[in-house]
Amino acid sequence: MTKLASLAVVAASLSVAAAQTYQRLGACPDLGCVLPPDQSDFLPGQYFDLRLEVHAPVNGSEAFNNGEPDENFAVTITKESGEAQSIAEFFNVSKPELEKWNFLWYEDLFAKDADTPSVVNVASKIYRKLAIYEPGNYVVTLSYYGNQTTVSNWVVRPLATQKKAKNVILFIGDGMTTNMITAARLLGHKSINGKYQSLLQMDQFPVLGHQMTHSIDSFITDSANSASALYTGHKSTVNAMGVYVDSSADFFDDPKVETIVELLKRTWDSAWGAVSTAAISDATPIALSGHSRSRYAYGSLVDQGLNSVTNYSWTSHGGPDVWFGGGAEQFYPGEGSYEGKDYYEAFASAGYDISLNKTSLLELGNSSKALGIFCQSHFPVWLDRNVYTDNLAAFENEPLGSESPALDLPGLKEMTLKAIDILHTRGGDKGFFLMSEGASIDKQMHALDYDRALGDLLELDDTIRATVEHLKAIGELENTLVLVTADHGHGFDVYGGVDTKYLAEQDTDRNKRKAVGTYELSGLSQYTVPAEGVSYGTGPNFPVNWDPRYTLAQGLGANPDHREDFRVHKSPRKVVSNSPGFAKDDYFVDSKDSADGFIVNGTLSVTESSGVHSLTDVAVFAMGPCQETFGGVYGNIDIFYKIANCLGLARPDNKPGTVPGSGCSTNGTKH
Amino acid sequence: MTKLASLAVVAASLSVAAAQTYQRLGACPDLGCVLPPDQSDFLPGQYFDLRLEVHAPVNGSEAFNNGEPDENFAVTITKESGEAQSIAEFFNVSKPELEKWNFLWYEDLFAKDADTPSVVNVASKIYRKLAIYEPGNYVVTLSYYGNQTTVSNWVVRPLATQKKAKNVILFIGDGMTTNMITAARLLGHKSINGKYQSLLQMDQFPVLGHQMTHSIDSFITDSANSASALYTGHKSTVNAMGVYVDSSADFFDDPKVETIVELLKRTWDSAWGAVSTAAISDATPIALSGHSRSRYAYGSLVDQGLNSVTNYSWTSHGGPDVWFGGGAEQFYPGEGSYEGKDYYEAFASAGYDISLNKTSLLELGNSSKALGIFCQSHFPVWLDRNVYTDNLAAFENEPLGSESPALDLPGLKEMTLKAIDILHTRGGDKGFFLMSEGASIDKQMHALDYDRALGDLLELDDTIRATVEHLKAIGELENTLVLVTADHGHGFDVYGGVDTKYLAEQDTDRNKRKAVGTYELSGLSQYTVPAEGVSYGTGPNFPVNWDPRYTLAQGLGANPDHREDFRVHKSPRKVVSNSPGFAKDDYFVDSKDSADGFIVNGTLSVTESSGVHSLTDVAVFAMGPCQETFGGVYGNIDIFYKIANCLGLARPDNKPGTVPGSGCSTNGTKH
Repeated sequence: MTKLASLAVVAASLSVAAAQTYQRLGACPDLGCVLPPDQSDFLPGQYFDLRLEVHAPVNGSEAFNNGEPDENFAVTITKESGEAQSIAEFFNVSKPELEKWNFLWYEDLFAKDADTPSVVNVASKIYRKLAIYEPGNYVVTLSYYGNQTTVSNWVVRPLATQKKAKNVILFIGDGMTTNMITAARLLGHKSINGKYQSLLQMDQFPVLGHQMTHSIDSFITDSANSASALYTGHKSTVNAMGVYVDSSADFFDDPKVETIVELLKRTWDSAWGAVSTAAISDATPIALSGHSRSRYAYGSLVDQGLNSVTNYSWTSHGGPDVWFGGGAEQFYPGEGSYEGKDYYEAFASAGYDISLNKTSLLELGNSSKALGIFCQSHFPVWLDRNVYTDNLAAFENEPLGSESPALDLPGLKEMTLKAIDILHTRGGDKGFFLMSEGASIDKQMHALDYDRALGDLLELDDTIRATVEHLKAIGELENTLVLVTADHGHGFDVYGGVDTKYLAEQDTDRNKRKAVGTYELSGLSQYTVPAEGVSYGTGPNFPVNWDPRYTLAQGLGANPDHREDFRVHKSPRKVVSNSPGFAKDDYFVDSKDSADGFIVNGTLSVTESSGVHSLTDVAVFAMGPCQETFGGVYGNIDIFYKIANCLGLARPDNKPGTVPGSGCSTNGTKH
Repeated sequence: MTKLASLAVVAASLSVAAAQTYQRLGACPDLGCVLPPDQSDFLPGQYFDLRLEVHAPVNGSEAFNNGEPDENFAVTITKESGEAQSIAEFFNVSKPELEKWNFLWYEDLFAKDADTPSVVNVASKIYRKLAIYEPGNYVVTLSYYGNQTTVSNWVVRPLATQKKAKNVILFIGDGMTTNMITAARLLGHKSINGKYQSLLQMDQFPVLGHQMTHSIDSFITDSANSASALYTGHKSTVNAMGVYVDSSADFFDDPKVETIVELLKRTWDSAWGAVSTAAISDATPIALSGHSRSRYAYGSLVDQGLNSVTNYSWTSHGGPDVWFGGGAEQFYPGEGSYEGKDYYEAFASAGYDISLNKTSLLELGNSSKALGIFCQSHFPVWLDRNVYTDNLAAFENEPLGSESPALDLPGLKEMTLKAIDILHTRGGDKGFFLMSEGASIDKQMHALDYDRALGDLLELDDTIRATVEHLKAIGELENTLVLVTADHGHGFDVYGGVDTKYLAEQDTDRNKRKAVGTYELSGLSQYTVPAEGVSYGTGPNFPVNWDPRYTLAQGLGANPDHREDFRVHKSPRKVVSNSPGFAKDDYFVDSKDSADGFIVNGTLSVTESSGVHSLTDVAVFAMGPCQETFGGVYGNIDIFYKIANCLGLARPDNKPGTVPGSGCSTNGTKH
């Protein structure tokens, strides 16, 4: 038996090394799984659940123990140079019940093609709502199958109980890379002989850092997982937020970690809010309050946003003081809302002022909680809201669920400034946390609609500029840590200029490509040169002409099949279509897109209809209290710890802080 | 006449707005040109030439004054709130002779196709070796054709005479973007559950900035122009270094600007050197000493490297104390060397120790000047020097000019550490400036040979790591400003993982693409997982397996036609070839490249055989004295001013500084 076991272990590790496209369970390379896994960090006092699993693969390269998982596994925790204790003893909790289930996975693409899944039987326990208060290194050891162990090394970060920033505003440009920031600057800001006459607001932040965005179990992340890393200090798996992903089927039983707004609420009772040009149920805004392995459980996540976690004992975040965005499908009663209920009604009953358009947004008072849902799905982008406004009529997106268009839409700037006023009023001396997202930088890069993406990047920057001015006006600039960052990238860049007139007049794809000028022939930006009869009224810091003859040669390394003519798309772009006789997820060039252009075949699976996220580190711009801690290169989870330290959330107990007097001062001792 | 003139001016500015692919003369939008142009910055006391041109287009959309340029143009300079003075008066120099010439250009691609050039007659004067010592704003006004003016606003930056850093080491990763740094980290450093177990050395620098790289007259730069901006504080035109580009035919009469090593030599008599894995005559190393509008005048530029500028009175940089690199063609007598002369002999006569291989490099003493030229052209890359070493025998590149291979090659690390020892000895209390370049990050990205590019990025980082350790060992770490940056980017990113086995076994291009896994299916890096029988002996911080089954899906937005199989290329990559019956610059996919892969059609002109530079801002990592000045976002020219300020080169006169006692102390007063 011993010999068999060790042979099987060798087979298992070989198989894991080979099984890259598919994995049995992320963050679980052995047959024993500890979640939070090896290399996890924790804020002192941060709540988390501890999931333990023992796997017994029934078939496949890892088949073991006739598919019988060890139900008598044991687990201990040891503080460095201390003695091992059982989890129940260390945390003073009772032992949970044993759970059992099984799941399927494919070992590689060949197995997927052949439809030969591997079956795994699982024995598991979960300890809920634990916390470690003492900083230091801990080792959790799971023992199973008699002689096997899985070891997780954990670090509980140092204490930081002093509140150094009263307020934190975190701007997230979803998918926003340095490359895109550079391109947006070129579009929106005039340069003379190589010297910019104005700059982006984010260019003017004093401190710059880079954050590494990869997932816990894959080197490319999505926006749920990466937002969750920013908000909790714990990386996770694609599509997950506020949890580590276990192997059970339930989307809502995975081991949770406490988020920044949950911590902030129970520690300082501060106000918090989220603003986005996406659906408010979309990953980046909803991950502040959401705990689920599936970002697609939109309705449930909105319910968690209002009511906090309800299926287990957990921290209440009190509900957002401000929620402004799209995603009406999760609010009007119907298929998209949790249990079909009316969430406009639910929020109103909970004391929220409800706003469904820009007019009423601007009329909101500042003393009540506010919910603003301005359209179904995501917002039409800045370019359609401000330049190609005729496109708005084609949307069937008004916030009560009819097929009419939402025409009275606020922009990110109006939503953010109003959110600040409400949060400032409601937070009072206790301060506030606001996340404001420019969501369609990402969404339009997915669509290869570069101009729409960069327009939304300029809208984000314009919002940041207005925010800095507004904070100054209300006397809160010195008290507010303002951060601008992204959650991941897309492999976008600008590589030259294009004479679109020349391109259009050539008769072959190969000749059309001669219109692309590189190096000295890239020329100068024509987006800042006034053109006769062209006036958008969009003010400074935006292009004065979106449709010049000479445009940018720009694009991505990762593409579906598509056409390129390098001109602005006057209506939202759709690059692929289906072909009669082919599968629905077998995508071909849409011949109606960029009709004057040439075909570019893709570098992604033909089942991808859009561009995808990329690996690159993304920038962090910081201004305000604790700004000096944001320089250099670090992980996305470190942003959580830096913010938490600046807010005095790293505490030696689970007691709330107090704000003495009228200032946002320190509370460094137990009480 | 007045009416005609003003009509013509309107026509001219319209034409310039339209003429993006081709320009009449960069930095000269009017018919009068002032070089240095509007928006130029200067270090106090920095030498420069002032070129004035008046253009009379003979034909084309700008045709003016029957092609007769105004020979009686006038020019003045005014310090803010002062009175206008003539150039001769202000600088106390005599008036130069009038020069006349003409040149041709094309107004756009249609004109180029039709071969209908526009002819421009020019009247010009040039004032040489001027300097402004007093900080402030200046206005230079060129008046011509009776009623026209071209105005240039100049800024002379503040004084900074105190030497704060004894030494400066500037590492340039040519073409190195944040995206590439992220990818190289993934290749060379192991991660467990999303936490890196080691980091790049540059990740550990305390201060991070971004620099904008664009040219003066196009938004994409090349390496000559961008290196020159870093070294002089003046942007220029593609292919130019140490000069602004005028319209005359002569490559060596353009208006010059003084470089960092020229300033450092005459101010502090410090030692300086350059190290590169490119030919030493290549743009990045040669721009320290070179003044030419053509980076391709390799032989002349090497002569300038030894003898300084000889055709005009100018600063002597004294010759490099260390020059280590490739490019033997400019040294052994023959076609590539200046006037066919033997530059090994010339350097030896000037007192240089000459080294032609790694063995003799390591044996060099530290007290003499040293020239090390280790091969013809650029170095074979790190991957060929260290992993696929059999490839070296196929090079015909030994440094005396025969067709034998250069096999005893040093790496960037050996060259850089030796350079530091020599510069430290020779500079003594006066300190030194060293530029060390990882050149083939750029060159291999051009070739779409991603692994070779990233291997050289890891070699650069390994060199930086060894440099920091070596500076510590010789007691110079605290005295040395260490900078790591790039000169421009390529639009590269990683967007997933690839099952290369699956890819190879599919029979159509569309099916092969299904091997690309994105998001959670990107998986984890296999480059840090030991593979049976694979051992390169390249030490930590490099991949342990360059050829795993699961590789990176990576690439560029700007491509020539090519094939992709996402595997390491075991010999250097060549993606395009010519086709019988087609023009020599009409490039098609080379079917021998990536034979298992699929075809990706290009997004560049079919006349491009390789990838091209991109727009993105690039990172600046800083450590040491003055590090705090390198945070945030700024122009590439600002790096020159930050270094010059840290070295006390911004001076109120043209007198040398003195180093009192044995330290590298201050000299803040005139003397």
